[in-house]
Amino acid sequence: MSRQPRSAQTRRALIRSAAQTFDEHGYPRAKLSAISAGAGVSTGALHFHFDTKAAVAAAVEEEAARTLHESARTVRHLTPDPLQALVDTTHVLARQLATDVVTRAGYRLNCQSAHRSGPDLRARWHVCVCELLDRAEEQNLLVPGLAAEESAAALVGATTGFEVLAREDAAWLTPSAVTGLWRSFLPILAGPGAPQTPEPSGPRTAPRGRPRAASALVR
Amino acid sequence: MSRQPRSAQTRRALIRSAAQTFDEHGYPRAKLSAISAGAGVSTGALHFHFDTKAAVAAAVEEEAARTLHESARTVRHLTPDPLQALVDTTHVLARQLATDVVTRAGYRLNCQSAHRSGPDLRARWHVCVCELLDRAEEQNLLVPGLAAEESAAALVGATTGFEVLAREDAAWLTPSAVTGLWRSFLPILAGPGAPQTPEPSGPRTAPRGRPRAASALVR
Repeated sequence: MSRQPRSAQTRRALIRSAAQTFDEHGYPRAKLSAISAGAGVSTGALHFHFDTKAAVAAAVEEEAARTLHESARTVRHLTPDPLQALVDTTHVLARQLATDVVTRAGYRLNCQSAHRSGPDLRARWHVCVCELLDRAEEQNLLVPGLAAEESAAALVGATTGFEVLAREDAAWLTPSAVTGLWRSFLPILAGPGAPQTPEPSGPRTAPRGRPRAASALVR
Repeated sequence: MSRQPRSAQTRRALIRSAAQTFDEHGYPRAKLSAISAGAGVSTGALHFHFDTKAAVAAAVEEEAARTLHESARTVRHLTPDPLQALVDTTHVLARQLATDVVTRAGYRLNCQSAHRSGPDLRARWHVCVCELLDRAEEQNLLVPGLAAEESAAALVGATTGFEVLAREDAAWLTPSAVTGLWRSFLPILAGPGAPQTPEPSGPRTAPRGRPRAASALVR
């Protein structure tokens, strides 16, 4: 069925196994032998794809970055209102962090600058938030006089914090927690010029419990 | 001059040296020999105080917890308005994270649950935020109908995120960044019942640039 070459399949399996290993044991204790065994291949096959543990970690982070990018693009495509798109993107990302081990491990590795050689996920998220707030401002959807940069920073801080806090207590990334965050934030952002008040509980069309929710949204 | 016994002085020097070593190299790469050398003592002296690297890390976290507790108590003592006390506490903590290596390393270690054996600093901070919001609610200082628990979670998320983001870019913990956070948050919280609007830029009486600002406040 699949046209994906075997080599690409193996690489994806290694990335997933690495994410599971990093997620369970942390980067310093993760062993390359456990990563290759988890992917059902030899350590030789692992070394064909990745020179070092740092290279595997960078690949996990790149995959998490790709998921972030795809999610944001898909939500924007489906949701013309930029404030609603911002709300919906946070919900989709929270669900991916909660359910997809590659996204979760990618963000966590990305937090440990000693190991990071790939993309800066939080900086990319900050850019995404600023772009959506800029579009909202152009459409006169924001509270008049709002300091959009400060609001963007507060929101990036809060979402980053929720991700970090969820490592100890998964309740920080449940739909109700993210909805609560938006019930707090939307009154700061949404002005009287909006045709309708954004819905803090996120996307209505997304099927629940699927790891790649953003991809599912466009099917 | 000091009446502190030599043993307690050595222990404090070891905690500070450990914090510097963890801050610079991360926990996994930190060597006990570097920690004892940084404190100007032998590794034997280190082992007199701490059995393992995890025990040194726990002591750094305990010291950071003590600083958090003292700061919060001092600010409350000086600031009767609970919302202003909340604002001022975040400013004092941000300055401590930016300037005091023991506080910074303590929070960072505390984020890595694999190594944590001491206090949960973020849970303690959450309790502190909830207590101050409860007091504000009792005094009718909050926006009517505010979901204080959700606001507390949003604020704990944002402050946690600022701390994590500052590891890559110190600008997240500057006074102006924390002031911007409060310019975003205060309109959510502060209701018309307040005798005066809280000041987002934090405490007026704190001398700048001192590592232990909370202690300085009471002098």
